Amino acid sequence: MTDLAERHRELLAQALDAIDRRTFWAGYAEHPKAYGEEAPAVGQERFEALLGTDFDTGQATSGYMEVAERSPYGLELGIRYPSVSVDDAVVAASDAMAAWGRLSPSDRASVCLEILDRLAKDPFTMANAVMHTTGQAFLMAFQAGGPHALDRALEAVAYTYREETRIPEPLRWVKPQGSRDPLVLDKRWIVRPRGVAVAIGVSTFPTWNGYPGIFASLAAGNPVIVKPHPETILPFALLVRTARDVLSEFGYDPNVVQLVVDTPSAMVTKDLVMRPEVGIVDYTGGSAFGTWLEENVHHAAVYTEKAGVNSVILDSAADLKGVFRNLSVSMTMYSGQMCTTPQNLFVPAGGVKVGDAMVPYEEVVARFVGAVDGLLGDDARASGILGAVKSETSLARIGAAAETGRVLSESREVGNADFPDAIVRTPVIVEVDTSSPAYATEMFGPVIFVVKAESTDDAIASAKAVAKEHGAITWLAYSTDESVVDAITDAALEAGVSVAFNLTGGWFVNQSAAYSDFHVTGANPAGNASLTDPAFVAGRFRVVGVRSEPAA
Amino acid sequence: MTDLAERHRELLAQALDAIDRRTFWAGYAEHPKAYGEEAPAVGQERFEALLGTDFDTGQATSGYMEVAERSPYGLELGIRYPSVSVDDAVVAASDAMAAWGRLSPSDRASVCLEILDRLAKDPFTMANAVMHTTGQAFLMAFQAGGPHALDRALEAVAYTYREETRIPEPLRWVKPQGSRDPLVLDKRWIVRPRGVAVAIGVSTFPTWNGYPGIFASLAAGNPVIVKPHPETILPFALLVRTARDVLSEFGYDPNVVQLVVDTPSAMVTKDLVMRPEVGIVDYTGGSAFGTWLEENVHHAAVYTEKAGVNSVILDSAADLKGVFRNLSVSMTMYSGQMCTTPQNLFVPAGGVKVGDAMVPYEEVVARFVGAVDGLLGDDARASGILGAVKSETSLARIGAAAETGRVLSESREVGNADFPDAIVRTPVIVEVDTSSPAYATEMFGPVIFVVKAESTDDAIASAKAVAKEHGAITWLAYSTDESVVDAITDAALEAGVSVAFNLTGGWFVNQSAAYSDFHVTGANPAGNASLTDPAFVAGRFRVVGVRSEPAA
Repeated sequence: MTDLAERHRELLAQALDAIDRRTFWAGYAEHPKAYGEEAPAVGQERFEALLGTDFDTGQATSGYMEVAERSPYGLELGIRYPSVSVDDAVVAASDAMAAWGRLSPSDRASVCLEILDRLAKDPFTMANAVMHTTGQAFLMAFQAGGPHALDRALEAVAYTYREETRIPEPLRWVKPQGSRDPLVLDKRWIVRPRGVAVAIGVSTFPTWNGYPGIFASLAAGNPVIVKPHPETILPFALLVRTARDVLSEFGYDPNVVQLVVDTPSAMVTKDLVMRPEVGIVDYTGGSAFGTWLEENVHHAAVYTEKAGVNSVILDSAADLKGVFRNLSVSMTMYSGQMCTTPQNLFVPAGGVKVGDAMVPYEEVVARFVGAVDGLLGDDARASGILGAVKSETSLARIGAAAETGRVLSESREVGNADFPDAIVRTPVIVEVDTSSPAYATEMFGPVIFVVKAESTDDAIASAKAVAKEHGAITWLAYSTDESVVDAITDAALEAGVSVAFNLTGGWFVNQSAAYSDFHVTGANPAGNASLTDPAFVAGRFRVVGVRSEPAA
Repeated sequence: MTDLAERHRELLAQALDAIDRRTFWAGYAEHPKAYGEEAPAVGQERFEALLGTDFDTGQATSGYMEVAERSPYGLELGIRYPSVSVDDAVVAASDAMAAWGRLSPSDRASVCLEILDRLAKDPFTMANAVMHTTGQAFLMAFQAGGPHALDRALEAVAYTYREETRIPEPLRWVKPQGSRDPLVLDKRWIVRPRGVAVAIGVSTFPTWNGYPGIFASLAAGNPVIVKPHPETILPFALLVRTARDVLSEFGYDPNVVQLVVDTPSAMVTKDLVMRPEVGIVDYTGGSAFGTWLEENVHHAAVYTEKAGVNSVILDSAADLKGVFRNLSVSMTMYSGQMCTTPQNLFVPAGGVKVGDAMVPYEEVVARFVGAVDGLLGDDARASGILGAVKSETSLARIGAAAETGRVLSESREVGNADFPDAIVRTPVIVEVDTSSPAYATEMFGPVIFVVKAESTDDAIASAKAVAKEHGAITWLAYSTDESVVDAITDAALEAGVSVAFNLTGGWFVNQSAAYSDFHVTGANPAGNASLTDPAFVAGRFRVVGVRSEPAA
């Protein structure tokens, strides 16, 4: 065992235990205070020092390029990134694979864990980078972009390592032949990488969604070309620089991890993934391009997380206050720009049973709208919850959604005291009924539909139909009736959607805990993969058998 | 645990142990004598009783159809099979999935093992069915078509069961919150099937190649529609009938397993696999259709085993006699109709080092040809090794191959005393050099190329280039030089081919042992999957998470 493997042995062992048990565990502290008093300011300074500069990843480059990266907080980023051609990157990755692919699983895992450790030691630089590229509020950017993403990465390394090391050590195989001499073969199995991996980043949660595929590919021996979203580059640039530093420091080819950046007017992703050297593609983003990948990339394993239409079904509850306290946060957090955000709140027209009483539909809806409006009434608090809106398209959906039904609450502009140019909007809340096509497509951004259902059964059937047709990642349901819980679980199984029940406290359906919650089922159009399960990692390497007749 | 689960508990436990250890183990006896004195005659009678009849699988059918099934031994089969439309089969499978998909992994595995047990108790009916549809000699048909195929099936069930049961039982997840109350969620995970599975059979080894996918799909909760090769139907009809009998007997919907038969003039496979209900496709067969599946079926997981060009590299040996004793069998067994048969024998022009002496190229080649001719000189012995040639296309390759180089040994017709109409040919042996395109494509059937290489390095480079371009499943190499062994292992890793060294005894490179040898690496164009590894089973089911806040 190398020193590096020894250094990370205990953490890897704990992660391996965690993925088997799936009870709570975390490898990286999620509380900003855990990092010391100086850390926030240091990270802030490091981030600011990057603005307006050439970001050097150490890659061979023909120069630094202007990009379309922009901050929803209105901060001028102005960072230029190395210009690296698809051809150069693929050739360098292929060259790097030869040695990286032949390291032991333990050596590769330990390099991965060293990279994670370096990132964990500087979470505030990353937090600022994530905040100012994605529009997340600071605390979310810190946690989801930092320690939670690192935990998702460690989880992926653990899964991959576990899978690789299930193959036995060299052995002698002896097949009895009755009274004759047995057949004897010496056998060993060698893990080999699948090919060059391409990780295509998303604009909203680049690290949290991207790390699992990147680190699973690395741990399995594949070099990774990271292709960030053209408008959210810096978080991945930090990752790539850190990874390359670690690789170089320990004597490995830094081209095991490379950054290839593009712009909306000259996109390179299709060229990149169609290269025959590519063996793996990981993608998080919109459905159109994800489906293009699934349909056109036949020479590589393609893992997608695309869009989904997530639903809440409100059947009955012990107490509506807790319901709306939880829902008002989960439906507005980061302005609906999470792939796990519930978009549709189904409410039966006959009302909702609360304890022994029936609360009429209109009252339920009014209380929900009141809870959202109350939560977001104060600009400072609203900013902390909503963050900022990343894309023009998301912003445009507010108006489009308002056309589709009765507006229960208008979207309003929210002022952000720290960043006056930040684009912050409260969600528009629109009422439609289950026959409306409006709620059946993903309205990523600050849009909430209250869907008036004929009954709980109608709500379940509608949520299921939408999930099967357009995908869904999460369902949340409230019911005190066991038979309704069973019916919703049944529908969730058929639609391939994970489901949560009766969340009223401090856990939100949007949240997916590493080592415990599988993210995406892969069983509906929201994606073909789960981050992280054995199916997500098992195809990232191949096994070559070597059999030898022992010398006489 | 049900009675059925209890009945098969011990065998499943042994298989689970075997896939972890990969040392020798077998679940089913491979020696015909193990089945008692009466068994061969009983199986023969049962087989003969099927000839010329309507084969009833118990499926709803509009009638029985004539098919193109034919015996390479010249026996008139004349069996008619139920006519089942794609639409009816898919609807029935979807209906059957609801209940089958919700059984426990243990219950499904035990039903699978009961099916295997029934098949294991009547191996001679299957042996005759396999022999007379594929052209395999009796002993191969018995072993590869019976117990070895059953072991491959049990292996797939064990892998699937292991994968499903790695997910923990329901648990309480508790996340500490410092001085505040912890976050508490009750979590459980439910395995759900991927969708209707379609298993597309091959004409030569329907059961051995087909069982792994079929039983992995079944164990994972997917109903299976078995679509045999239009000319090799009976083995799968026997499987389907047995499976349906077991399912009915234990109260399950027999449509969990269905047979859909077609004819060359009205093929249904494309219609079948393009149905949106289909979630899994397993395929063994030619590259053209396998590639079509990989490129066109985006809505389902596609597992292929296609063609490959397998090579032997002869560098040096302790003794040529053992080399050719082994090679003459492996290169002629079942007339080269195994996906693992070595097609190309690379011999360096400078000769082969044997002990301390250099045996000149021409002498090496002459001794190889002599060994093959000697082995196949006697018609009775030749028939036992060669079996019969299944397809007209394979037969036609003899003449085509002879045109491409110097014929070292002509193909000759071999008489089969038991079956005068059997189509039996010794292989044509053709000499080409490494610049020839002839040896670079798969010549499935009785064709052997001796490829004259400039050197061992040229041989390695040529074998590697062919494997990377056209695929390969096996390599066999002879060398007493460790550096050559390393170079060949290195090339095998890069080409993604499993490799055997210095086989001179009773084990042939064509053979792939269940529980120990991975079949196909999935790392070159010979196929995208390995039968059976975790990647082959992990995607056949999906996991839906259910999280609930505990009631106050």
